[in-house]
Amino acid sequence: MRILISNDDGINAPGLQALRESLATLGEVTVVAPDRERSGAGHGITAHKPLRPKKVTFPDGSHGWSLNGTPADCVKLAIEALLPQKPDIVVSGINLGANLGTDVLYSGTVSAAIEGIINGIPSVAISLASFKSNDFNPTAAFAAQVVPLLVNAGRDSQDILVNINVPPGKPVGIKVTRLAIRKYVNVFHKRTDPRGNDYYWLAGEPEDTVPEDPGVKVDVDVEAVKNNYISITPLHYNLTNFKAIDYIHKMLQRQTPTKDI
Amino acid sequence: MRILISNDDGINAPGLQALRESLATLGEVTVVAPDRERSGAGHGITAHKPLRPKKVTFPDGSHGWSLNGTPADCVKLAIEALLPQKPDIVVSGINLGANLGTDVLYSGTVSAAIEGIINGIPSVAISLASFKSNDFNPTAAFAAQVVPLLVNAGRDSQDILVNINVPPGKPVGIKVTRLAIRKYVNVFHKRTDPRGNDYYWLAGEPEDTVPEDPGVKVDVDVEAVKNNYISITPLHYNLTNFKAIDYIHKMLQRQTPTKDI
Repeated sequence: MRILISNDDGINAPGLQALRESLATLGEVTVVAPDRERSGAGHGITAHKPLRPKKVTFPDGSHGWSLNGTPADCVKLAIEALLPQKPDIVVSGINLGANLGTDVLYSGTVSAAIEGIINGIPSVAISLASFKSNDFNPTAAFAAQVVPLLVNAGRDSQDILVNINVPPGKPVGIKVTRLAIRKYVNVFHKRTDPRGNDYYWLAGEPEDTVPEDPGVKVDVDVEAVKNNYISITPLHYNLTNFKAIDYIHKMLQRQTPTKDI
Repeated sequence: MRILISNDDGINAPGLQALRESLATLGEVTVVAPDRERSGAGHGITAHKPLRPKKVTFPDGSHGWSLNGTPADCVKLAIEALLPQKPDIVVSGINLGANLGTDVLYSGTVSAAIEGIINGIPSVAISLASFKSNDFNPTAAFAAQVVPLLVNAGRDSQDILVNINVPPGKPVGIKVTRLAIRKYVNVFHKRTDPRGNDYYWLAGEPEDTVPEDPGVKVDVDVEAVKNNYISITPLHYNLTNFKAIDYIHKMLQRQTPTKDI
């Protein structure tokens, strides 16, 4: 099994090392990860400066690359240029801190996994849903259990992209979930620097809401993790809002700036 | 009508100026845009350095802010801190170059609009689907026609987020579309610098495919623009793959690492 690992906490992050060591028991692991923390990078890519991969050697003698780019850059460059052949799976993480609800849009960890599935490779983002714990081993062990299942599933389906959040401590089970809507209150802290200029820190406390019932009974991810379950959310990357097509069509027909719609 | 404008080409981009001047005919326009080009920023946000808005004055005497952040930062900071009250609509653009198909994931222009709808505000991303034309006026005029419709629609629906691509020249009509799947070939150009180090430029030519029929007959956006139509794609930001929930559930039940799913 050929496994590509990336993350958004950077190549030296302890979560990445724990994941690498755990998945090395399954097959051939290659790490291509940002050279520094790129949390919140979203699905950013680097088009206007050169990408410079640097070969790194890990303490156990295995190799990888650090890159002056985003998580999505890492996966793209790995697949298109650095790896001799396509990996069987892309695993992104282990992120320090949860990636839950609509926050996945901001997440470099999740975006690296989305870049994997865009390239037709089963992909998974995995996070330790805590900033207080630094014990990545249970999450890394769970990754090693679930990765072979996902690789197998990828043989049947083009569609294997999951976002996993593991609560700290001992989980009580697993739930397949849907994303909550996560908004923030008190989003910015305003301060003034010694030269009298205002600046802002992004901050905020999450306020979660449960989106409209999708017609199937599925727990939301934030609730599952709060109740100490491992949350596995299948994701897709098609942003078309099919439900709104009719609505927009009628809106334009009612008062259209041109005749042909 | 209160209109917030942002973009990813930066506050000095001609597309933004054309949009600003055109929408000023509709109401009160405020620009909050990145201080430099942030194309490909995706939905990145800035959590690890302070955001510094700087007031700018445009040639016609109107005001706005430039920001050392991403397009998503601009919309977030505008709504949460800079504007005295929520705008009625967020308009992002006019982008120089198309934002079509799955490329919307990488687009700072589209991400600024997504940030608007996350905050409950009808939002639109608008692009001139050409790198060769620099005549933004027809696109800006179309924006001024469609923005009032979208603001009205926003009174009925929580769901108003659209991605508009306007072909250069004279469009033959409007189509409500879905996103194509846009992949690239020859993605990276490898070069060697004068010191013997390899580096890579992101490049590539798009290769579009039409995703599986969604059960409704809707043209894909790339085809519409190729045929000289204005393309309007309704978007959403819920990445849950509801179709895959059952599949993942069964996969885990077949060979589960823990008992409780």
